[in-house]
Amino acid sequence: MRSLIDIKDLSVKELDELCKTACDIIKHPKKYENKCKGKKLAALFFEPSTRTRLSFTAAMMELGGNVIGFSGASSSSSAKGESVADTCKVVSNFADIIAIRHPKDGAALSAALVSNIPIINAGDGMHAHPTQTLADLLTIYREMGRFNNLTIGMCGDLKYGRTVHSLTHAMSRYKNIKLVLISPKELRMPNYVINDIIKKNHMPYKEVTSLEDNIKDLDILYMTRIQRERFFDPKQYERLKNSYVLTVDKLKKAKKNLRILHPLPRVNEISVKVDDDPRAAYFRQTLNGKYIRMALILKLLDIAKKNPKREPLFDQKKVRYDLKCTNVRCISSVNVEHEHKFVPTSKKGEYKCVYCEQAIKK
Amino acid sequence: MRSLIDIKDLSVKELDELCKTACDIIKHPKKYENKCKGKKLAALFFEPSTRTRLSFTAAMMELGGNVIGFSGASSSSSAKGESVADTCKVVSNFADIIAIRHPKDGAALSAALVSNIPIINAGDGMHAHPTQTLADLLTIYREMGRFNNLTIGMCGDLKYGRTVHSLTHAMSRYKNIKLVLISPKELRMPNYVINDIIKKNHMPYKEVTSLEDNIKDLDILYMTRIQRERFFDPKQYERLKNSYVLTVDKLKKAKKNLRILHPLPRVNEISVKVDDDPRAAYFRQTLNGKYIRMALILKLLDIAKKNPKREPLFDQKKVRYDLKCTNVRCISSVNVEHEHKFVPTSKKGEYKCVYCEQAIKK
Amino acid sequence: MRSLIDIKDLSVKELDELCKTACDIIKHPKKYENKCKGKKLAALFFEPSTRTRLSFTAAMMELGGNVIGFSGASSSSSAKGESVADTCKVVSNFADIIAIRHPKDGAALSAALVSNIPIINAGDGMHAHPTQTLADLLTIYREMGRFNNLTIGMCGDLKYGRTVHSLTHAMSRYKNIKLVLISPKELRMPNYVINDIIKKNHMPYKEVTSLEDNIKDLDILYMTRIQRERFFDPKQYERLKNSYVLTVDKLKKAKKNLRILHPLPRVNEISVKVDDDPRAAYFRQTLNGKYIRMALILKLLDIAKKNPKREPLFDQKKVRYDLKCTNVRCISSVNVEHEHKFVPTSKKGEYKCVYCEQAIKK
Repeated sequence: MRSLIDIKDLSVKELDELCKTACDIIKHPKKYENKCKGKKLAALFFEPSTRTRLSFTAAMMELGGNVIGFSGASSSSSAKGESVADTCKVVSNFADIIAIRHPKDGAALSAALVSNIPIINAGDGMHAHPTQTLADLLTIYREMGRFNNLTIGMCGDLKYGRTVHSLTHAMSRYKNIKLVLISPKELRMPNYVINDIIKKNHMPYKEVTSLEDNIKDLDILYMTRIQRERFFDPKQYERLKNSYVLTVDKLKKAKKNLRILHPLPRVNEISVKVDDDPRAAYFRQTLNGKYIRMALILKLLDIAKKNPKREPLFDQKKVRYDLKCTNVRCISSVNVEHEHKFVPTSKKGEYKCVYCEQAIKK
Repeated sequence: MRSLIDIKDLSVKELDELCKTACDIIKHPKKYENKCKGKKLAALFFEPSTRTRLSFTAAMMELGGNVIGFSGASSSSSAKGESVADTCKVVSNFADIIAIRHPKDGAALSAALVSNIPIINAGDGMHAHPTQTLADLLTIYREMGRFNNLTIGMCGDLKYGRTVHSLTHAMSRYKNIKLVLISPKELRMPNYVINDIIKKNHMPYKEVTSLEDNIKDLDILYMTRIQRERFFDPKQYERLKNSYVLTVDKLKKAKKNLRILHPLPRVNEISVKVDDDPRAAYFRQTLNGKYIRMALILKLLDIAKKNPKREPLFDQKKVRYDLKCTNVRCISSVNVEHEHKFVPTSKKGEYKCVYCEQAIKK
Repeated sequence: MRSLIDIKDLSVKELDELCKTACDIIKHPKKYENKCKGKKLAALFFEPSTRTRLSFTAAMMELGGNVIGFSGASSSSSAKGESVADTCKVVSNFADIIAIRHPKDGAALSAALVSNIPIINAGDGMHAHPTQTLADLLTIYREMGRFNNLTIGMCGDLKYGRTVHSLTHAMSRYKNIKLVLISPKELRMPNYVINDIIKKNHMPYKEVTSLEDNIKDLDILYMTRIQRERFFDPKQYERLKNSYVLTVDKLKKAKKNLRILHPLPRVNEISVKVDDDPRAAYFRQTLNGKYIRMALILKLLDIAKKNPKREPLFDQKKVRYDLKCTNVRCISSVNVEHEHKFVPTSKKGEYKCVYCEQAIKK
């Protein structure tokens, strides 16, 4: 049995297979309409997220399965102090696979360590949201016909935008990917992404502040929202905000074959007038999200059927129990009895929390 | 493809057809139990409404279909600032038909303008709630066996009661309908309903304040709730409230064949002791609500199948973009980028907002 | 037609049958997967309870049925002042059976008096939660192979713990059941349970304060949570709390064949390190909860099919309408029009409210 906690858990080969399955589902939906008959997905959403929850729900239903769950912590036993792990262990008795969304980093992993059924991470705090990245990848694959040889612009809040970090990681495994990182200085891509992913994989990149000046070079433009709260200086926000809004006007300079992606929901960072442009791929992206989740559910249920035993999520032999995670958003900070666990990273003397992956030197 | 935003969108012939389909479903439920197999209804309830949501849900399930959705704004992406139109456009990718409930007038229309699947308005603010009116009509049809030649009493809050306005409009298209409008002066039927619907269609009517004195004449008694908040003077409320409560005693003066309707939920405006009287039709009315929704879902899915293109919801050529809607409850007041759109009414120099239908002179 | 309001409503023979059906479902799930095809369960949860709601939902789905409902009062019409009885009467038109959870004592009974479909009490305030007791019983049956000849320890908050009261009642009907009541003095088993159930049925029992000293005698250990709020003196709580936490250490003194039960959710009263011990039966208990609910749904739908008329829930002829229930948590305190109804108990001159069962002398 395997779970999906992070996009890194999937090999390039596995990503290809998932995309291929998704394309086959799109072509031959009838073939799949009873694949999950009699099976149940538990959608455990400890914080609201319409899009992701409805996408998983629709995915399971189109496979002929049923869905149970909740869509907010107040409707759940966690209000009574139950741990995420306990909730998932109980739900293991009611369903065949779990999609979990939780505000704490590492919540999905803490569930996967005790669950008797596969766990899909549907977003754990600031940590990871692998099925969004899967939707991004399938969209690139279907819109461009390839994963290699692409110039990808990432625009907006690159500092806090979890989705652009994951996408950067995922694309780092393909060939000839050029990155154009477009953001205000306050919100530039964090150093650990630049050093540990971009530079390490020798990806050509440039950091720029103008969307307008750089849009002409792009094959993919991945838009994200800039939140006012991210700025220390509100005047700075007012001065900058419009330069990161995609308008029909700015789009005039772009390639004919550009594709615009956005994880949605959008607020105003893409003008609604852009929606009718064939290059706007963000609504198709949500459709792709449904299909790739169908492929993922099928894959994980298939693995669980062949081998019901939990595959290890990290190397048990290398775990250190003497270090404490200091990340206040980490699930390990919540329960009294929660064991802190650290494993070595590739850097000498560095360890990371198995839940939230925050690293410390020792 | 067609949506249902307002009861006026349906012709008398279409209303008859819907009632006939509903009656056929009641007689031959087996015939319909797989009609929507593999289809999904999205019940997008931006504000709570158990009755309406469960009615739509049960309707879709009895057609063999599935239901996805949410039951409150806090569980939805709108909390993150997403527009109703965007939410519905995304959900178009997950479902085959949408039932939407929203606190803003015109929300359903704003969704229908961009959605790729049919939209059913399940209540948009103070504007319209056409499936309630459909339930009312089917109840009249099944209980009385006819739509013509009826004396209909409407009792309670006729000023703010959206359902009585819609029902008045719907009945104005039948023959020999007499109206008895029973309410305190503070809550009498608005002038625009009296002038634009009742008088315009030459419907005989009278406005009275006593339920007790007028109940004997009625074929239909449509009860609504009087809310304390509607009164400027609390003493006035205390003095009046009991006269608009239907009791076993008041019912003694009524016809044997009277039928009592109520959109529910009731608080205390009909004594629970009335429930066992065969003339009490309000619980059967909720059952009819389910059946007419089944008929409606079938009809709209059928139209969408035959013609996937959106039929225009108003005359695009006559739209003026230079007027601004001043209704604070209108959906056009919410989003920055929302285009204000006005179309001419039948009155010279008058235009109405396409969303909330509030008219202005120009 | 019959409803299940209290575990006392079921005879020992009926309990045995339910357990047998549950075991047959476990053995032959395929045989049952379409038993409720085309049927709907309404899960009406006026207060949140993940475990119970998901258990009912999974149960109905594994019988091939559908589920509608809500999971909090704010999503329901009760926010608009509708009575529980009205809500259930309306929902009778949308579903085939109702599982209701409500914060008021007697809410389930008030629904069962007017509903046209069977009602299952899924917890009504402090009053009753019979399907939890059914899950407890099936767990004892499957883990121990018998209901007779057992020494049962009940540990923790025996004063407010609704589940231990119901289990005591249920076990009082079997042979040679010894009870060990383990609690701090502040939270000992109430006198009415000791007098009216334990002593009346001549069950051997002892009241003790130490879990550690008494664990060795037990066949069943039923753990419950001690809430800080229950103590007048916080120091007392601090002093006591650890002695009622089940640890690996305390477990060393227990029988090899002990079984540990807990209604869940747990907070910290059982160490997570105990989870891997084969004697820990509390997660299996939630699985049993699903199976016994499947059996119960089948039984009640079957009775309703054979006889659609409501069976009386108490002796109508003996009802007194002149007494008023003073229990502020009772459903009879909520609605203005609610009739107070009392029936005689077995004690002379004593009457109990039919809703909350609180007794008064007259």
